Amino acid sequence: MDKEKFIKDLCIETDSKIVLLVMDGLGDLPQSGVTALEAASTPNLDSLAKSGCCGLTDPIFRGITPGSGPAHLSLFGYDPTKHILGRGILEALGVNIDVTKNDMVARGNFATLKGDLIVDRRAGRISTEKNQALCKKLNEAVKEVDNTTISFFTGKEHRFVIKFTSEGLSDQLSDADPQKENKPIVYPKPFSSEAKRTAEIVNKVMDKVTDALKEETRANTILLRGFSKFPSIPSMEDLFKLKPAAIANYPMYKGLAKLVGMDVLDVGPELEDLFESLKKNYHKYNFFYVHVKKTDSFGEDGNFQAKKEIIEKTDRFIPLILDLKPDVLAVTSDHSTPCLLKAHSWHPNPFLIHSKYAQTDIVTKFSEKECSRGYLGRFRSLYAMPLMLAHAGKLVKFGA
Amino acid sequence: MDKEKFIKDLCIETDSKIVLLVMDGLGDLPQSGVTALEAASTPNLDSLAKSGCCGLTDPIFRGITPGSGPAHLSLFGYDPTKHILGRGILEALGVNIDVTKNDMVARGNFATLKGDLIVDRRAGRISTEKNQALCKKLNEAVKEVDNTTISFFTGKEHRFVIKFTSEGLSDQLSDADPQKENKPIVYPKPFSSEAKRTAEIVNKVMDKVTDALKEETRANTILLRGFSKFPSIPSMEDLFKLKPAAIANYPMYKGLAKLVGMDVLDVGPELEDLFESLKKNYHKYNFFYVHVKKTDSFGEDGNFQAKKEIIEKTDRFIPLILDLKPDVLAVTSDHSTPCLLKAHSWHPNPFLIHSKYAQTDIVTKFSEKECSRGYLGRFRSLYAMPLMLAHAGKLVKFGA
Repeated sequence: MDKEKFIKDLCIETDSKIVLLVMDGLGDLPQSGVTALEAASTPNLDSLAKSGCCGLTDPIFRGITPGSGPAHLSLFGYDPTKHILGRGILEALGVNIDVTKNDMVARGNFATLKGDLIVDRRAGRISTEKNQALCKKLNEAVKEVDNTTISFFTGKEHRFVIKFTSEGLSDQLSDADPQKENKPIVYPKPFSSEAKRTAEIVNKVMDKVTDALKEETRANTILLRGFSKFPSIPSMEDLFKLKPAAIANYPMYKGLAKLVGMDVLDVGPELEDLFESLKKNYHKYNFFYVHVKKTDSFGEDGNFQAKKEIIEKTDRFIPLILDLKPDVLAVTSDHSTPCLLKAHSWHPNPFLIHSKYAQTDIVTKFSEKECSRGYLGRFRSLYAMPLMLAHAGKLVKFGA
Repeated sequence: MDKEKFIKDLCIETDSKIVLLVMDGLGDLPQSGVTALEAASTPNLDSLAKSGCCGLTDPIFRGITPGSGPAHLSLFGYDPTKHILGRGILEALGVNIDVTKNDMVARGNFATLKGDLIVDRRAGRISTEKNQALCKKLNEAVKEVDNTTISFFTGKEHRFVIKFTSEGLSDQLSDADPQKENKPIVYPKPFSSEAKRTAEIVNKVMDKVTDALKEETRANTILLRGFSKFPSIPSMEDLFKLKPAAIANYPMYKGLAKLVGMDVLDVGPELEDLFESLKKNYHKYNFFYVHVKKTDSFGEDGNFQAKKEIIEKTDRFIPLILDLKPDVLAVTSDHSTPCLLKAHSWHPNPFLIHSKYAQTDIVTKFSEKECSRGYLGRFRSLYAMPLMLAHAGKLVKFGA
């Protein structure tokens, strides 16, 4: 069954409003007996858990650790195994590059060529400042090839993103990367005949870049990986008849929201800015994705104390959300980021839904362990969207 | 989504070790209020349940009673509805017949022919000794037909297994069995043109057998059912990058393990032999399937007390496994075999996973009822493998 199509056929447009608060990487493993969420004092989230309905979600399925892309797609109601996001597009979103349907992007490395061989795939990890100077130079020297506009965007150290813009480009290309040092330059090969022209363009760009960098001693050529076009994902408006807005501090999450057709709202860099933006824009949309990044960042750092504190800080904004009287407030994470692992993991996410139509269960605290006793059970994040839509009265009956 | 393919793409080879302890037919229904597992004193399993993570598994899905073949395939990470094992192959594995890719096997009955009619489909349930004498006679009289080697293997009473060996055989054949008494002999028909030659060979074999048995009064012909070739299942090494070993006392389980490419270790007939073999071979593999048969046998006998005792006996070997310090220890059953039903059933299996990355839940005892409160929830056995792989650090992140 195509679940997206199934849901689409049942969706109706209403004025009711949904707020999805994503505390990135919230789920955790116990340290000294408790998780960061269990250790945190969260009276407001606990009150939501008590009056609402809880469960645990798997972003993909049991055992699978997701990247941020598939984890978010799943929460937004998309099958993450159907819509595969290329590495290039995520990198581009992460550095805040505007990507539209005539663009193709790829991740790049500056590298060192000596004679015919790539002797350093990272050009001695040049500084970000040097990288900026090189991108500036290339943006002047290699502006256009075969009616295709070429743009270079600085990343960290030796990393950059390249964007090709023209009609009819194809990302069905192999990586232009020898993978190992002391091998010759590798040119991308087309996986299909429709990508032949694009391969020729990329080859020419690579040669022009190497020519433009010939005076450089270290960063005198480039490698390109993960060619990706803007994925054709149906919009949330198209699928769910929502008018959605994204409220996020970090570029990658704004980019992900843009992929599914959300309006990305202007927001300051602080936690409080998220909730201020929500309040300010509340009348304009009926679905709000609010993204708290730092729960994940502190998980990645293994900083249990800081993760606990950011959870507590977020908890204090819950009354502000409730003051807006959303028809549905769902709180969850996209994936777990246990401090113990300092990385994303396969452990499920606590999930709560607050709505006047939520069935009250026996859960009285918002935590991994308590949510495992919730009425919603353990389910794929993919079902979060139909649950939110249903509680907001946005889904009609299936069948007679 | 092809889950096997999905997992395959994420697997990496590591040295971490997984022990999967299968207590066959463990799950049960309460008698006088408790199940055999609840009645048993299992301090070691309870301790694993307390520190680890529990759940309940369905071998296929809710309501489906599986045979040993699909139940085990599912635990080994294979979709049991995709890889169908013929009855012939399972019967052959059960009597310890070596089957390789040029072999085709079928289950046979000795039967009684009177005039043109089969008057007894079981030849009066002749003794196993008589069966042995008949198979010996046939192995001399019907050795080869059309360059195909024919072998007969005694089963219980009137049952035997026949093996055909040559290149290009096909198991796309209908059964050679009238199903009812007082019907004429039925010859197998090919389901496809590629099976035409095989059908001719089987027909000739049937006539030669009837001719060789013409002096017999009861067992003077044969019926053949469930033609099956060695199934082409990808190996666990191919799919999961594991180096797997099977430690089992009984032929069918050794055979099942062989189907998925496990090394089948030599092991004595007793329970303790399993754990001795595990210890002896622990350095050579990174996945161990340890199979305890008698929980199922006593379930099939309806012997509650003996089932309880074999569970207690198995529990006492848990510390021996833990001494080896496996990265993951999973304990479960392939299917339930309630004493009340004296048969396999559709009831779910208790499941526990022990690992330093297992999320501790509220379960403190290993039982059907307690596992239903576990953090893992209720899931298809098919997900046991990704869970074990994830906890052993053998799965990389999906997507960026």
